[in-house]
Amino acid sequence: MTAEIKKVAVVGTGVIGNGWITRFLAKGYDVIATDPAEGAEERMHKAVEQSWPYVEELGLAEGASKERLTFTDNLEEAVKEADFIQENVPEVEDLKQKVLQDIDRHSKPDALIGSSTSGIMPSELQAHFENPERFVVAHPFHPVYILPLVEVVPGKSTTKENTDRAKAFFEGLNMKALIVRNEIEGHIADRLIEALWRESLHIVNEGIATTEEVDQAFIYGAGMRYAQYGPFLTFHLAGGEGGMRHMLKQFGPALKKPWTKLVAPELSDELYDKVVSGCEHQSGDMSMSDLDKNRNEFLVRLMDLVQEYWPEDQSKKKETTEV
Amino acid sequence: MTAEIKKVAVVGTGVIGNGWITRFLAKGYDVIATDPAEGAEERMHKAVEQSWPYVEELGLAEGASKERLTFTDNLEEAVKEADFIQENVPEVEDLKQKVLQDIDRHSKPDALIGSSTSGIMPSELQAHFENPERFVVAHPFHPVYILPLVEVVPGKSTTKENTDRAKAFFEGLNMKALIVRNEIEGHIADRLIEALWRESLHIVNEGIATTEEVDQAFIYGAGMRYAQYGPFLTFHLAGGEGGMRHMLKQFGPALKKPWTKLVAPELSDELYDKVVSGCEHQSGDMSMSDLDKNRNEFLVRLMDLVQEYWPEDQSKKKETTEV
Repeated sequence: MTAEIKKVAVVGTGVIGNGWITRFLAKGYDVIATDPAEGAEERMHKAVEQSWPYVEELGLAEGASKERLTFTDNLEEAVKEADFIQENVPEVEDLKQKVLQDIDRHSKPDALIGSSTSGIMPSELQAHFENPERFVVAHPFHPVYILPLVEVVPGKSTTKENTDRAKAFFEGLNMKALIVRNEIEGHIADRLIEALWRESLHIVNEGIATTEEVDQAFIYGAGMRYAQYGPFLTFHLAGGEGGMRHMLKQFGPALKKPWTKLVAPELSDELYDKVVSGCEHQSGDMSMSDLDKNRNEFLVRLMDLVQEYWPEDQSKKKETTEV
Repeated sequence: MTAEIKKVAVVGTGVIGNGWITRFLAKGYDVIATDPAEGAEERMHKAVEQSWPYVEELGLAEGASKERLTFTDNLEEAVKEADFIQENVPEVEDLKQKVLQDIDRHSKPDALIGSSTSGIMPSELQAHFENPERFVVAHPFHPVYILPLVEVVPGKSTTKENTDRAKAFFEGLNMKALIVRNEIEGHIADRLIEALWRESLHIVNEGIATTEEVDQAFIYGAGMRYAQYGPFLTFHLAGGEGGMRHMLKQFGPALKKPWTKLVAPELSDELYDKVVSGCEHQSGDMSMSDLDKNRNEFLVRLMDLVQEYWPEDQSKKKETTEV
């Protein structure tokens, strides 16, 4: 029997830690935070204050209050009574190892422990735990109090029961909890983000384009689509009635071309089948034309929205007002 | 002196060609289209019919009408009186070369010619033109009648005047015309999309995750952000008050780690400066906290919107209704 989660502790109060704090508070949890840095407590309160209007707009749980947040500079004090503990110290493996082992030692043995690590594998982080079975990577996205994704990665010693508990807890926070079944460095999302990031750096490094041009080249076309459909379903839809089957025929040969610095895998029959049947599965009972209609309706409404918020358009508005 | 653009021709009426047709018609142009495929005319009219409600919603120009579209199976006939010609035949270099040379030969010598090629360089495509100075790559994004980006890439023989004319024409179509100053295979946007695509294929190929899991890992976190800010400004913002300077300190070392199959460039002082000053430049007169506020307000409104259109949530809605 494991207890219901009532008290939450947050270890490390940078951008990500403070984002978690706001999300936990918005859902009505008591939160205790700790961070050894000078001025951390003040910065934390300021960050929660600034993000509060957005969680209010998204909807607070009954009883949710900024007043239910406390701070201590003592890690043991912070974690000893918590039912759930989220670690967010800087992305330095030795430091994470040490802090997580401290958390493991000082917390209740059945408290769930999550780490916000961007890329370190959970089996490495839990390797020296006394109670490793209650540890998962729980990797969120900035701003944590708005964006729904959390990648939940169990390590070799994590029990299925605890992975399920973590998933249920995050779903209770209105998050999309994606269980990552295989540990790899960078989990899944960061591998994609990192590929995009490295390609962007190559383009700037070689003087092809500025950071601004790279950003514009991405946002106004592909970027808008990716708020709704991922890399696979986007290509499935770009194939017209033939879907991914047609796309792979049309753009499969491009995998051999130097369209990125990244060398592609061989498009084997097995990979072809996985990709095509994957896209068909994820379309569920929506036909190609349902998906198409859904995308168009979304994008038309998104066009309205983004034009209010694209920084470039905002500068234009300012100029117009000033003239 | 070059004439004003009044008549537009579209060569190749697949998904992209038909998308262009709808966008041209919505802006009030006369459009003549050609495609040698059996049934192309009928498919074209059906495609325009289906996309029309969306351009109506985005706003039609005065006089815009679907009736102003004609079709011929004769390429010469299609292009001979056009002021602007957009080519969209399949992505096969020999075929594109041949069709573009036909267009060059049969069109008015000062008609602008654009190619929708995803990745072939304009200098190669215009190499055997009689009048190469009026040719640009004009690479749009699907669905062309909604998404605003067009990458305009001049070749070695393209004049600046014609590049500027093309830019002005596309901006007149309410598009974001990004001049790509350096030719590379895949231009800019497709290099980024292709890096993401190849990394996604590696993940599926190695059995790490399904296409659906990859899509979910991307959409619900990073994907939502990319509708507003690109790879650079996103990281600039993730750095808190320190912006990109802090991010490169925190995640620079990750460039050496196997977080993607793509090897990163060396983070030299020069690259560091380009990236930091680039982000600062593109922020314009918006402070870090302006950018942050702008992002949060956008994302809160986007959360409302996406939940109506994510396919997964739609399936859930259906289930709920059915139960």
